[in-house]
Amino acid sequence: MIDGVLNPELDAVTPPTPDAPCGEGESKAPIGVFDSGFGGLTVARAVVDLLPHEDIIYLGDTARAPYGPRPIAQVRGFVLEALDDLVSRGVKALVIACNTGSAAALRDARERYDVPVIEVVVPAARKAAGITRNNRVGVICTQATASSLAYDDALGASPVQLVTQVCPKLVEYVEEGITTGPEILATVRDYLAPLQQAGIDTLVLGCTHYPLLSGVISYVMGEQVALVSSSDECARTVFAELTRLGLLRDDLDHEPVRQFITTGDAERFQGLGRRLMGSFVDQVRSTRIG
Amino acid sequence: MIDGVLNPELDAVTPPTPDAPCGEGESKAPIGVFDSGFGGLTVARAVVDLLPHEDIIYLGDTARAPYGPRPIAQVRGFVLEALDDLVSRGVKALVIACNTGSAAALRDARERYDVPVIEVVVPAARKAAGITRNNRVGVICTQATASSLAYDDALGASPVQLVTQVCPKLVEYVEEGITTGPEILATVRDYLAPLQQAGIDTLVLGCTHYPLLSGVISYVMGEQVALVSSSDECARTVFAELTRLGLLRDDLDHEPVRQFITTGDAERFQGLGRRLMGSFVDQVRSTRIG
Repeated sequence: MIDGVLNPELDAVTPPTPDAPCGEGESKAPIGVFDSGFGGLTVARAVVDLLPHEDIIYLGDTARAPYGPRPIAQVRGFVLEALDDLVSRGVKALVIACNTGSAAALRDARERYDVPVIEVVVPAARKAAGITRNNRVGVICTQATASSLAYDDALGASPVQLVTQVCPKLVEYVEEGITTGPEILATVRDYLAPLQQAGIDTLVLGCTHYPLLSGVISYVMGEQVALVSSSDECARTVFAELTRLGLLRDDLDHEPVRQFITTGDAERFQGLGRRLMGSFVDQVRSTRIG
Repeated sequence: MIDGVLNPELDAVTPPTPDAPCGEGESKAPIGVFDSGFGGLTVARAVVDLLPHEDIIYLGDTARAPYGPRPIAQVRGFVLEALDDLVSRGVKALVIACNTGSAAALRDARERYDVPVIEVVVPAARKAAGITRNNRVGVICTQATASSLAYDDALGASPVQLVTQVCPKLVEYVEEGITTGPEILATVRDYLAPLQQAGIDTLVLGCTHYPLLSGVISYVMGEQVALVSSSDECARTVFAELTRLGLLRDDLDHEPVRQFITTGDAERFQGLGRRLMGSFVDQVRSTRIG
């Protein structure tokens, strides 16, 4: 099997035709947000904050999460299946709210779909490069994101010296609802010590779960270090791209529809989603893809 | 009448005794968040994101909002009445999520209450001073905040040169649900042009409504300018203070109670609150203070 072509059937088929074909009604179509699991909810909510009248479809591939330990070609197949599903629902833009998924499938997605594809790595990297004072930037992320070198690549043409720190336990803490207390404080101190020693002045939260830990992270790093949230920067890029392309709704009396779809169990998704993001997560349905 | 003593009766009475006296159960008490209106909801939600197990009581003095056009002594009386109400409900910390209210009553509140008092100006100013590269920082805010010189004072001992821009229309836009489109884009461009000409590299969103406009603000200011949200920085300071003081809950299985109380009409508060912050705003009740 050729690396990157795990699923030749998928590559052979034509990408799906949207239910609502593009044209005059294009700006009224929903924004599709994809993540392997729950972290992308911070991206979805940041998009909703900035674009409160837009319809959103969030698709979490929780049945096959986490993507991290899987080979990249398999992840690519999963991501494209999920994005195909969103495109077939007629979305006007795709947001890959998943660092691992973006590293695996961004270029393929851009070739495969006619709608704009926005992700989490480049917006955060661009912001960090823009605001660092000493060109020493840290990124904290999962092992999969670190191994992909996605942030290294995104910053490759900049003068930034990147220091990467893998934080394997943090996603687990967030999903268990542990954001305070001596245990997480000690863990975060351990993780961040090498970044402090390296003298970084800007820290990228390179996993969409981490904004929910910005209390403890900010407490450890102090006032002199700028925190860049990949979720916030992604949402701002969604705003900018859809503004540039004239794709935002102009009927500001529209009551937005927000759908949450999971490939796993809807009840479990709603439970964990609510633990992370409160009542933002509502109307969860289950679907099959692939 | 002596300036600053609008309400001599208030000054003469003893501050209220909390329902649940401090002691061993202290860390289980709720956090009180006060604002004259709705903007403080961005602070409350940021606190909830970082401290998902904490009980919160949000008090919005919407019956007497906006505070901006009122004389400072009157605002001080209103704020202390509202904080008295929160203290009588047994809160373990007070958050003044209101720039005008903080400028008027912070020092009085610190003298008056035994619980820590945290506000929005100093955390944002400290962060901006910490991360600016060229010591040119902008702040956008309401006329009342600008007139109070609160940010100038907070940055007075730093090498920062502050450029203040009053943005009278932005609160109105947010409360009308207008965060996109050519009209607000043109308005924001006009407001921000002097800050761009001044060469600022860091911009403080000095009003708690403005995080909901960070899409359009970021779009206009570009990647080289760091945005500092007074709401996020305030919430991080709440995290830090309560961690330092050992006042956070340690029973992480606690189902948090979040109450929203308004001095105005509960239905109207819920309607506008939901327009701004979606389903975060729930269980609104009406109260009388003063």
